[in-house]
Amino acid sequence: MTEEELKKILRHYKTGRLPEKELIKRLKAPGYESLGFATLDHHRQLRQGFPEVILCQGKTPPQVAAIAARIAHRSQPLLATRAMPEHYRAVRKKVRTATYNEAARTITANGPAKIVPGALGTILVVTAGTSDIPVAEEAVVTARMFGNQVETLYDVGVAGIHRLISQSVRLLSASVIIVCAGMEGALPSVVGGLVEVPVIAVPTSVGYGASFQGVTALLAMLNSCASGVTVVNIDNGFGAGFAASLMNRGLRPR
Amino acid sequence: MTEEELKKILRHYKTGRLPEKELIKRLKAPGYESLGFATLDHHRQLRQGFPEVILCQGKTPPQVAAIAARIAHRSQPLLATRAMPEHYRAVRKKVRTATYNEAARTITANGPAKIVPGALGTILVVTAGTSDIPVAEEAVVTARMFGNQVETLYDVGVAGIHRLISQSVRLLSASVIIVCAGMEGALPSVVGGLVEVPVIAVPTSVGYGASFQGVTALLAMLNSCASGVTVVNIDNGFGAGFAASLMNRGLRPR
Amino acid sequence: MTEEELKKILRHYKTGRLPEKELIKRLKAPGYESLGFATLDHHRQLRQGFPEVILCQGKTPPQVAAIAARIAHRSQPLLATRAMPEHYRAVRKKVRTATYNEAARTITANGPAKIVPGALGTILVVTAGTSDIPVAEEAVVTARMFGNQVETLYDVGVAGIHRLISQSVRLLSASVIIVCAGMEGALPSVVGGLVEVPVIAVPTSVGYGASFQGVTALLAMLNSCASGVTVVNIDNGFGAGFAASLMNRGLRPR
Amino acid sequence: MTEEELKKILRHYKTGRLPEKELIKRLKAPGYESLGFATLDHHRQLRQGFPEVILCQGKTPPQVAAIAARIAHRSQPLLATRAMPEHYRAVRKKVRTATYNEAARTITANGPAKIVPGALGTILVVTAGTSDIPVAEEAVVTARMFGNQVETLYDVGVAGIHRLISQSVRLLSASVIIVCAGMEGALPSVVGGLVEVPVIAVPTSVGYGASFQGVTALLAMLNSCASGVTVVNIDNGFGAGFAASLMNRGLRPR
Amino acid sequence: MTEEELKKILRHYKTGRLPEKELIKRLKAPGYESLGFATLDHHRQLRQGFPEVILCQGKTPPQVAAIAARIAHRSQPLLATRAMPEHYRAVRKKVRTATYNEAARTITANGPAKIVPGALGTILVVTAGTSDIPVAEEAVVTARMFGNQVETLYDVGVAGIHRLISQSVRLLSASVIIVCAGMEGALPSVVGGLVEVPVIAVPTSVGYGASFQGVTALLAMLNSCASGVTVVNIDNGFGAGFAASLMNRGLRPR
Amino acid sequence: MTEEELKKILRHYKTGRLPEKELIKRLKAPGYESLGFATLDHHRQLRQGFPEVILCQGKTPPQVAAIAARIAHRSQPLLATRAMPEHYRAVRKKVRTATYNEAARTITANGPAKIVPGALGTILVVTAGTSDIPVAEEAVVTARMFGNQVETLYDVGVAGIHRLISQSVRLLSASVIIVCAGMEGALPSVVGGLVEVPVIAVPTSVGYGASFQGVTALLAMLNSCASGVTVVNIDNGFGAGFAASLMNRGLRPR
Amino acid sequence: MTEEELKKILRHYKTGRLPEKELIKRLKAPGYESLGFATLDHHRQLRQGFPEVILCQGKTPPQVAAIAARIAHRSQPLLATRAMPEHYRAVRKKVRTATYNEAARTITANGPAKIVPGALGTILVVTAGTSDIPVAEEAVVTARMFGNQVETLYDVGVAGIHRLISQSVRLLSASVIIVCAGMEGALPSVVGGLVEVPVIAVPTSVGYGASFQGVTALLAMLNSCASGVTVVNIDNGFGAGFAASLMNRGLRPR
Amino acid sequence: MTEEELKKILRHYKTGRLPEKELIKRLKAPGYESLGFATLDHHRQLRQGFPEVILCQGKTPPQVAAIAARIAHRSQPLLATRAMPEHYRAVRKKVRTATYNEAARTITANGPAKIVPGALGTILVVTAGTSDIPVAEEAVVTARMFGNQVETLYDVGVAGIHRLISQSVRLLSASVIIVCAGMEGALPSVVGGLVEVPVIAVPTSVGYGASFQGVTALLAMLNSCASGVTVVNIDNGFGAGFAASLMNRGLRPR
Repeated sequence: MTEEELKKILRHYKTGRLPEKELIKRLKAPGYESLGFATLDHHRQLRQGFPEVILCQGKTPPQVAAIAARIAHRSQPLLATRAMPEHYRAVRKKVRTATYNEAARTITANGPAKIVPGALGTILVVTAGTSDIPVAEEAVVTARMFGNQVETLYDVGVAGIHRLISQSVRLLSASVIIVCAGMEGALPSVVGGLVEVPVIAVPTSVGYGASFQGVTALLAMLNSCASGVTVVNIDNGFGAGFAASLMNRGLRPR
Repeated sequence: MTEEELKKILRHYKTGRLPEKELIKRLKAPGYESLGFATLDHHRQLRQGFPEVILCQGKTPPQVAAIAARIAHRSQPLLATRAMPEHYRAVRKKVRTATYNEAARTITANGPAKIVPGALGTILVVTAGTSDIPVAEEAVVTARMFGNQVETLYDVGVAGIHRLISQSVRLLSASVIIVCAGMEGALPSVVGGLVEVPVIAVPTSVGYGASFQGVTALLAMLNSCASGVTVVNIDNGFGAGFAASLMNRGLRPR
Repeated sequence: MTEEELKKILRHYKTGRLPEKELIKRLKAPGYESLGFATLDHHRQLRQGFPEVILCQGKTPPQVAAIAARIAHRSQPLLATRAMPEHYRAVRKKVRTATYNEAARTITANGPAKIVPGALGTILVVTAGTSDIPVAEEAVVTARMFGNQVETLYDVGVAGIHRLISQSVRLLSASVIIVCAGMEGALPSVVGGLVEVPVIAVPTSVGYGASFQGVTALLAMLNSCASGVTVVNIDNGFGAGFAASLMNRGLRPR
Repeated sequence: MTEEELKKILRHYKTGRLPEKELIKRLKAPGYESLGFATLDHHRQLRQGFPEVILCQGKTPPQVAAIAARIAHRSQPLLATRAMPEHYRAVRKKVRTATYNEAARTITANGPAKIVPGALGTILVVTAGTSDIPVAEEAVVTARMFGNQVETLYDVGVAGIHRLISQSVRLLSASVIIVCAGMEGALPSVVGGLVEVPVIAVPTSVGYGASFQGVTALLAMLNSCASGVTVVNIDNGFGAGFAASLMNRGLRPR
Repeated sequence: MTEEELKKILRHYKTGRLPEKELIKRLKAPGYESLGFATLDHHRQLRQGFPEVILCQGKTPPQVAAIAARIAHRSQPLLATRAMPEHYRAVRKKVRTATYNEAARTITANGPAKIVPGALGTILVVTAGTSDIPVAEEAVVTARMFGNQVETLYDVGVAGIHRLISQSVRLLSASVIIVCAGMEGALPSVVGGLVEVPVIAVPTSVGYGASFQGVTALLAMLNSCASGVTVVNIDNGFGAGFAASLMNRGLRPR
Repeated sequence: MTEEELKKILRHYKTGRLPEKELIKRLKAPGYESLGFATLDHHRQLRQGFPEVILCQGKTPPQVAAIAARIAHRSQPLLATRAMPEHYRAVRKKVRTATYNEAARTITANGPAKIVPGALGTILVVTAGTSDIPVAEEAVVTARMFGNQVETLYDVGVAGIHRLISQSVRLLSASVIIVCAGMEGALPSVVGGLVEVPVIAVPTSVGYGASFQGVTALLAMLNSCASGVTVVNIDNGFGAGFAASLMNRGLRPR
Repeated sequence: MTEEELKKILRHYKTGRLPEKELIKRLKAPGYESLGFATLDHHRQLRQGFPEVILCQGKTPPQVAAIAARIAHRSQPLLATRAMPEHYRAVRKKVRTATYNEAARTITANGPAKIVPGALGTILVVTAGTSDIPVAEEAVVTARMFGNQVETLYDVGVAGIHRLISQSVRLLSASVIIVCAGMEGALPSVVGGLVEVPVIAVPTSVGYGASFQGVTALLAMLNSCASGVTVVNIDNGFGAGFAASLMNRGLRPR
Repeated sequence: MTEEELKKILRHYKTGRLPEKELIKRLKAPGYESLGFATLDHHRQLRQGFPEVILCQGKTPPQVAAIAARIAHRSQPLLATRAMPEHYRAVRKKVRTATYNEAARTITANGPAKIVPGALGTILVVTAGTSDIPVAEEAVVTARMFGNQVETLYDVGVAGIHRLISQSVRLLSASVIIVCAGMEGALPSVVGGLVEVPVIAVPTSVGYGASFQGVTALLAMLNSCASGVTVVNIDNGFGAGFAASLMNRGLRPR
């Protein structure tokens, strides 16, 4: 609550327009709704400008469906990630308009947001290999859901560096670049050296042996010598898409 | 080289204005200068809009001084990080205007850039504890060097969460937030949940025992549940400052 | 055996009331019963004030059932953790009154103990997310089984810190707090900074990528800056519930 | 602020005893003081019943001295841990009564608190070996500083288990037990099996080879089969002493 | 080949009794038989006094059966470890007398050797818990196969140390002790402190969370403070049984 | 593109034989074909002298089949590794001549290349045990596909060192040796000490307990004291076969 | 205390020869002496047949000297390991006959024990390289101190396997073999395959890069395929020497 | 010994030219010389075509000097790596012609071998950064010592990929390429994709934070997607130089 809001309700209280009990309730009001197994943050859209997102992994289908229903009930955009088909089936019963993207493992409804014309740039999602595409698609769905224009450039790893160099026009025309790679942790570093915009690196759990389910790619990305590269968790396409959306909003008056 | 530039020099070649030898040289020109032990990238400022930066760690003072001299010779802004006093003494002999920031371990000259009025927002640098300040200062120097307005908020860790909550006005007025923490990897997550701008998390090698020289903070930051948080290498204040500068530039016409 | 007890039986021996053979047997008596594959500690309830507990993981259903039968035979409270349905089916045949809690994966009988009025405070079990609930429930069942009053507060992670702050009344009224979290290892630290009672942190194996099946949460919890926080093994809801019970017993005359 | 306090100042405001400006200040008051490099929590003693504690590691002597001076200025008990002699020399200039414990590496002043008669039990601090004593002493100083009666039992590792068994009377008469061990991670487990009170395990960085600076002891302690054992960070004698103090306070009316 | 043997065949060659071709063959003879996918060591029984042993893990049932057939063909004792039922079914077709021990996952034939009277002592196999028994049984089968007298003592972990102490007579009467433990890496250390014979520690992959599939037990065992304890690989019951057999053979004239 | 080629097409352009549009296309031509999910490198055979190879792991059968079809369409040799039967079934529909090697998990067509007589030596593939054979076979298939003469020597681990020593003639007659081992990371070191040619070590994920899925073998191989040994990723039989092929080509005039 | 001893003192008590107070004291007597910072086990020589040993690492010189003085006071053999010169200087003042072995870093007095003629075999200590010798020497001093005949064979690593093979006579004539290696974890495996006696592997912290201070050697040794090999902690020459002494004692009547 | 040699000496023995004693000596002769702390392999030059090399790390200066003297005594080329100035001073006293290369930390004498004209190609040594040069220089000295023509290309990391691309002519003209990198583990992969010769990757311990003293670079190199890349231990410039020499020898008649 801002100071301005606080001043206003205090004055109403003093003049008697607001009873003490109501004032206390407002001062204490959390803006949260409890479902017992989940505590929904109904103020997040106001606070962050983006809707609530559900991570399905670790939740039962009924739990996901119940949360999705509460969000859809308020006509907020719905995005659920790491959704298995059984999650979708449960959601579908409560939110008729929900659709499932099998490659990205996402459930969406009430979206995607319309792309804001002019003000926003393009988010480019790049992968080192074909196997990195599912993680990249999660980023694509997320970024589109939040109203961004998104393009993709897949299978351009550094072992055949000319594949990447030949696409430098596309790299240079993006506002934010997301790079997903499991076996080539250096790809974000190479990309970062070619452009002048933020690069978000997403290690993927693709590979075998000493790739350690994405840990090697993660570490290599953190050691990147190219400035401007930041990193998210292994396979966290959603996190990259969300962060890219924040970076792509530009600066607004406050 | 853009296609437009290519077209132009090819026409000059065809009409004879540009000799074949010169054309080939330009098509092949690397824009790099070799010092034997280092290969300088003289095009980087053009390509990335930011000057070359020297990581002193692992380089001898004479090597750092030689590179610094080449940069200063071109009147480009000079930033050297992880500089020990002996690096500074060597640089000082070649670049008279160079200054040393002991806390941040940086050498700078020909800067900082003037803060661009209006278009740019404020970068806020936050630390969990007092021990995280040196890394934070490296980020501060870097971001200021690249022409950003920078503010700081130190020692506001989550174990006394009200210290942070009470500063929410400052958090909400920043364009990009850098959070440095060694013993409280969750601070970026808490901050990320309070704001609607990109948050860059910098794990620091502060702590003991199971902090493992910053690894625990790094991992905790990568697991952050707050969307919009991205991570850089342990103690990489420079990387955070640089990435924040890119994010703070806003969207420009291309 | 205390010195008092020792004195008593020695005097009985001297006066002839206790034959030498019996005395030696008592001096050597282990208070243990061997089932071949298991050695039951029949004195534990006397020694620790709490009954024997069975960890089902790694034991076959017949092994669990045999141990459970021996405990029930003595009318001691029965608690078996990490029980699969097949363990329950085997136990059920021998202990008719046994019940199964699927969420907590526990088998119980001859309980829960009645809550001791007055002397005991409340144990509050908190989770960062919905996925942490199964581990939390193991702690809840354990603490209730040992006669504690237990309350829960679920899905109040630090990424939306106000969800937690708004519940500070409940936090402040607890005697011991158990905090279960897999992706937000800092939650115990935040809670510990708000209260003046012992906080037991339970890392959970929830999460993906760099969460490493709970290791990241474990390490983050160990680095907690909030004093008063101690940690148990990953997913060890039982251990947290047991330790909380000991802490909740208060000080008794000895 | 509790609801009761809130009600009171609101009524004073309504009746005019409290001006609006003052009310807002109180509602917003953080209770924190900023020294630039540190943000002091002046409410902690009220909130947690224990004073502010300074971790010297990572702080410069002037920083520690400045913080110590602010605490002493309010006549609060002063405890600084991991203090080097240079920290003490700096503190000594500002806080004349400060004393230094070289073994425990602590600086203290305005203490220790008087031991509360009757209500409080004894905290017993145990070590596996002679090398674990410095960490144990940090726990001893901390617990004494907070008004506890403390006893010690050193060098009773499990490789000569009778050394421990022969001391069972002392183990059984403690209210809380702290066990410090670097090469014998199982000692807390053995102790935990002998008593019916909370056991806090402190891994120490003592040992060589596969002890990995305390990690092996830490992991072994987390795997403890004895219920009632909780663990703190490697070498964190302070944390153990603080948590033991909370556990030793017993239950108070709320 | 010993020098004596060499002298003998060289003289036969010189006198013409042994043709040059045959001499060279003998000098070069490996004593190995190749099955293409396996190279059998037919001299091992001579060289080591113990027969060839087959590790089934990683081998197909036909491969195991073919090797077993070659061993049985020479009437050597057959021992195959980590055998799945399908391995046994394949072996059974070729070696009619083979038997399968499901708990120990072993296939045996032409054995066990008769226990050598008098000269050999007893090997005692101890486990910390019930879940460690399968690994212990592999050690038991192995040691019996090699002609040792073997006794067992199961579920005597350190959390209830009196269970172990009460069995000290059995511990003291053994010649070699094997201790298997997954959650209580300190058990070998406690045992080693009670006896004066070699103790072989076998970490097991039993446990959860920070037990890391036996790694924690392994490390704890290596840090054992009790002298006389040596360690084998995680779950390597066979290795422990074999090494114990060597230690139990006593000293023979050479 | 070499400078010679560049000069030629530039002159054709100047004389008008090559239109500007075509020149630009050539200067920009990547030599890559995009399938959306994959970017094929059609110049690799020219550049590296070896055809494109498909890693099936992480790709769907339709993706593998589509790539295979594009390669076969150009009559280039086809090699797909880590292929599951479903990959083969999909490829078979598009490339009729494709064959599947179940042990090596490879799909091949248009090969193997004929063995170049005279100029090329022999590649010897060695394994420590029977379980290492599948990885070795991947190396065998790869090396044969690229036109090498290949021999094998299986199950000659160091625990029975004479098995290896007795084969020294075969070791000494090879040009390059590939050594695959999971439980005996020292085998490449022993081999490297016996020969004077490059030895490529391939750790395999065979073993249990502290073998950590090949990591122990990998590390042991990297520590090899025998000069001339280099290492590839765990289970990377293909990489070893490919590198051995490059080493076996000898030196050619440039 | 054995049952026989117990019977005897109980009868003396019954007949009045032993007063109750004395009986209780004996039943409770620990056989330990406390120095405050150390608890000496005066019964160990009786119980284990070997004297108390001091690990100097982590102890101050005065602590080591005080313990040494107590041991020497009882004319027991004195062995202190990992002793720095300052430890020796402190001990020397209290135990005049103490001598220091710089290579092995040991302090000894009242020894070594005389080698038992006939009954005992020879312990052979082998190293892979020259750098492993200090650890080997600690084993040599220990084994000699306990009355064993010890021989050495240094710098016979597997990279030049013939160096080892050529010494097979010496290998075959040993009763127990200790193998110390830092860069060649496979040496114990090779040795184990050549002999029929127990082999104790000692990883050393020699090496660089991926040797990880002995961890790679440790893991490689645990994966040994040669049966009969057991392992001790990194650099634990003492532990190996002690265990070898136990194995070398042969079987005695009980 | 080859079969041919064996036949010859056997015939000499039969005809009496070679006495039995001498024959046995030859059959048993190890070709090794023992210095007590080191076992020199005098046959290595014959066997491998390259002289003995001394790793100074872990050896005392007198030990290194004694070994060097034995090698120089036979007029074999001398190469000692990881030599500190004190090693050099000791060697200098015994081998007057020895020279020290401070950057590469090598001692050499009796070399370098003359570069074999014609038959041998060029070994190119590449580094990602300036800090990687010391390791690269060790490789350069080694390769030159063994008679190779060596060129260098330093500071061409992937973050400014054009620096590398612009040097493709030099890359393409090498026979073997060694790539040293600490912060850019992907450089070998990029290089490997550009050439058709063996690439040896050397991770260096350069970097900070999540570079883990070269481990991140090592892992990234092992995951290289470019075929033809093999890896040596961290900082093992010598190993890379040696292996490159073997690869550069081409194929010789056997």
